[in-house]
Amino acid sequence: MKMILKIQTPDRKGLIAEITRVIFDFNLNILTNDEFVDIENNLFFMRSEMLGDCDIDALKREILKLLSIEAKVEIFEMKRRKIVILCTKENHCLGDLLIRYDSGELNADILAVISNYDSLKPLCQKFGLPFVCVLNENLSREAHEEKVLQELRKYPCDYIVLAKYMRILSPEFVGEFEGRIINIHHSFLPAFIGANPYKQAYERGVKIIGATAHFVNNALDEGPIIYQDITKVNHAMGWKDMQKSGRDVEKIVLAKALNLALEEKIFTYNNKTIVF
Amino acid sequence: MKMILKIQTPDRKGLIAEITRVIFDFNLNILTNDEFVDIENNLFFMRSEMLGDCDIDALKREILKLLSIEAKVEIFEMKRRKIVILCTKENHCLGDLLIRYDSGELNADILAVISNYDSLKPLCQKFGLPFVCVLNENLSREAHEEKVLQELRKYPCDYIVLAKYMRILSPEFVGEFEGRIINIHHSFLPAFIGANPYKQAYERGVKIIGATAHFVNNALDEGPIIYQDITKVNHAMGWKDMQKSGRDVEKIVLAKALNLALEEKIFTYNNKTIVF
Amino acid sequence: MKMILKIQTPDRKGLIAEITRVIFDFNLNILTNDEFVDIENNLFFMRSEMLGDCDIDALKREILKLLSIEAKVEIFEMKRRKIVILCTKENHCLGDLLIRYDSGELNADILAVISNYDSLKPLCQKFGLPFVCVLNENLSREAHEEKVLQELRKYPCDYIVLAKYMRILSPEFVGEFEGRIINIHHSFLPAFIGANPYKQAYERGVKIIGATAHFVNNALDEGPIIYQDITKVNHAMGWKDMQKSGRDVEKIVLAKALNLALEEKIFTYNNKTIVF
Amino acid sequence: MKMILKIQTPDRKGLIAEITRVIFDFNLNILTNDEFVDIENNLFFMRSEMLGDCDIDALKREILKLLSIEAKVEIFEMKRRKIVILCTKENHCLGDLLIRYDSGELNADILAVISNYDSLKPLCQKFGLPFVCVLNENLSREAHEEKVLQELRKYPCDYIVLAKYMRILSPEFVGEFEGRIINIHHSFLPAFIGANPYKQAYERGVKIIGATAHFVNNALDEGPIIYQDITKVNHAMGWKDMQKSGRDVEKIVLAKALNLALEEKIFTYNNKTIVF
Repeated sequence: MKMILKIQTPDRKGLIAEITRVIFDFNLNILTNDEFVDIENNLFFMRSEMLGDCDIDALKREILKLLSIEAKVEIFEMKRRKIVILCTKENHCLGDLLIRYDSGELNADILAVISNYDSLKPLCQKFGLPFVCVLNENLSREAHEEKVLQELRKYPCDYIVLAKYMRILSPEFVGEFEGRIINIHHSFLPAFIGANPYKQAYERGVKIIGATAHFVNNALDEGPIIYQDITKVNHAMGWKDMQKSGRDVEKIVLAKALNLALEEKIFTYNNKTIVF
Repeated sequence: MKMILKIQTPDRKGLIAEITRVIFDFNLNILTNDEFVDIENNLFFMRSEMLGDCDIDALKREILKLLSIEAKVEIFEMKRRKIVILCTKENHCLGDLLIRYDSGELNADILAVISNYDSLKPLCQKFGLPFVCVLNENLSREAHEEKVLQELRKYPCDYIVLAKYMRILSPEFVGEFEGRIINIHHSFLPAFIGANPYKQAYERGVKIIGATAHFVNNALDEGPIIYQDITKVNHAMGWKDMQKSGRDVEKIVLAKALNLALEEKIFTYNNKTIVF
Repeated sequence: MKMILKIQTPDRKGLIAEITRVIFDFNLNILTNDEFVDIENNLFFMRSEMLGDCDIDALKREILKLLSIEAKVEIFEMKRRKIVILCTKENHCLGDLLIRYDSGELNADILAVISNYDSLKPLCQKFGLPFVCVLNENLSREAHEEKVLQELRKYPCDYIVLAKYMRILSPEFVGEFEGRIINIHHSFLPAFIGANPYKQAYERGVKIIGATAHFVNNALDEGPIIYQDITKVNHAMGWKDMQKSGRDVEKIVLAKALNLALEEKIFTYNNKTIVF
Repeated sequence: MKMILKIQTPDRKGLIAEITRVIFDFNLNILTNDEFVDIENNLFFMRSEMLGDCDIDALKREILKLLSIEAKVEIFEMKRRKIVILCTKENHCLGDLLIRYDSGELNADILAVISNYDSLKPLCQKFGLPFVCVLNENLSREAHEEKVLQELRKYPCDYIVLAKYMRILSPEFVGEFEGRIINIHHSFLPAFIGANPYKQAYERGVKIIGATAHFVNNALDEGPIIYQDITKVNHAMGWKDMQKSGRDVEKIVLAKALNLALEEKIFTYNNKTIVF
């Protein structure tokens, strides 16, 4: 059995020795071990991949004994995750995930795809996936979101992937799935927050555009950043050319960030991420 | 004699044929020819490098005859430019330019270095360059800038390079050298406008930082962007690590932008650049 | 009607003026115009996108009159291209093209997909495309290739895309489609020519891997390079991790190169490309 | 006192717990701790930065007791390193190091600069550094190298930096400074091994060029790679343009690799590096 251990705790001398001693006492083999100390905030972060068999609850109890009351400890078996994808009309991020899913590269089951348009229904159906269309026409934002929530609750999942879902989520929605919603923003945040960043980028005359995958919190485009990448642009490109070129960055950035989440390599604190 | 021709004019059919005909009639050989049409604004841009001997004023008159009244035409002999560098305390951008100057790679004469500190005086003196220190202590912003201006006027130059000059310039100052001041901003504009962008970047938890070289206009950090580049960062880097890593990007970006200016490859309009 | 003009000819003074004059006389509007002079070889290259209606053969005759006997001139209407894709077992390059095809982003019709395995048949069928499996088991290289050729000839196309087709093509095959076969090589050529470049890269301990899209000629992995890109790797990655990461580069590089070919932006000479 | 611990040993269960226990028993605080297990070769690598005071030899003895006979353990106080730079005629890599040295950014003392030409003497003298010119004219390779060795031995140093030193070193020379010579190769190794890689790259028509910093071993351009980076090029660039653009990459790559060495973040084995 492969297990993941994630610890976030105030730092003190001897922590690694004591924690790894407990792991050894439980007869587990450490495959990889990553630590990081945020000296400024005196915080210790550790992630271990461990191989072996043990009573996870007992292991957790023993480790918690070593740590202060503020410590957060997670231990779980590494297994294939379940995700639900939300999208609107653009097919490149969804399509990229579907192709990875089709080859088995994506280490997750896609339970369903939910959209506020029906344009991507045929694409999802090609891959035999449930597609739920929740039109937003004639609905208030609250009413639409409530219907989306109802659908989402039918598919209990580990992560929700916003694959170019062009609706703003309410604090209530985000609160229900805290730290489990991954969004791809089509700009190099924090530049060009908000609508149509490619047009903003074009008008500002930048020479590089980018994309940002981040966890969603209650402030639009302000959640903890997981991964970013960029591509060069020039004066001869209109904003639609930038958008076309940017889509290639978006889909790769989203897939990389999702993969990090599926491998449970991310810690979040102070609205930032630690990525091992 | 190598000459540069730069034209910005409303577009219409036949322009290239007519302009290149005139060049041919003056018995000039076109070495490189770049055109760009901004369709949205119906603007035609052309830059030619030409070899031969001719009466430049006569050539300009003939080309202007073909164009509408709004046209801007520049023709000049390609020659080594003169620059003045402004800096404060950091040595990496200045030092990079000095090393290029020392090997003859920099296609410009550095007339003088002006600073509001005296820390970089020894470095400049190593290379035999005039170093003018205009301390800003006990001076109002206006009074200090006026003294800098007085010094600058002693060294008539083609371009002023702000190599990490940490003072904000007034509209009057900028107006006197319109389109001739190149700044390096230590962030990937338009992200992190203003002071200490590395600290801002660190606090926002970005995964990429960058630098932007731009012409200076009257709005802080808002002038036309010439060149940008980036480097990846991670959670283990504090803001000083980001700054250290960012400095390598800054100096290369500034040098590339300056080189484009020295080769007269840049057009500016609508607060953007066209870079051939 | 939008037309493309491509000229490759020995350089001489006045060429641009004369050629653009002819274009003007045919009452065509030049949308974009790119020139390049290879001074070393005294060769002039020009590509124009032109708008208007004209007798293409007459235009070509007039332009040829201006040029020396070695000149190559192509003029054609810009229209949607036809492609055939060859692949083996990996789905990422094929899948990426299918998703672009599905959204209408790919400016080409995919006539068929031909493979030496049947693994990708279900994927192709999802998108309603003819899938031809030509197994190579129990066949000599010559016999297999001959069968592939027979299938290919049923689908006359502008470009053949080798989307991870893991068979070496004979000079006869390549000769039949000269300058029309685009391959994606899974390394940063000319490093790691030949089989399993990721394993080679891992064993060499490189810190960056890449992918190269090129036209195929008779020397393995030696044709004119169209586009390349890279991604960083580190010691913690085994060769399969590198391969997984490299696939993201491969598919984007292939798509960009194919797009350049579909827009007829590439000239080939001396085993190199000029990409406008 | 800040200390570095570097361990390379066959892997087994419990290693981290036991080693960090010993560190704790010596009352040292671990600032950062990096581990890597090469599963294929069953090798465990660990690097710790530790704060505190202790008897280094005693600590080393205790740690060695835990490990098998093949283990390599290094513990040393983190202190400013000494380097000697070898160069030929190009000033960009040397100049970049001098500017970093001048600002105090370079965490090393430059003891001397040795060159087979005298062109860079004035530059070194500006910075008050001993410059030793060992002309190779009229000398056999062996005789010249012997003279360089004699000079080198006058400046006992931790690392020798080949900052564009264009002479091939003999196995004897390399053997004397094993694992302590860092070279910058002006190509993206393993592409374009040997002389004038920019010309090779130009002739091959690549779209990206790069630079590689590596430890020198006895096979030309074949030592363990420390760091690499790249920059994009295009058809309009001749090989001298590529060289000019490549120099910016070279100097940054060399400086980054040297910095990693100065911070003792590199392990070398199987002709590869592990970089923490």
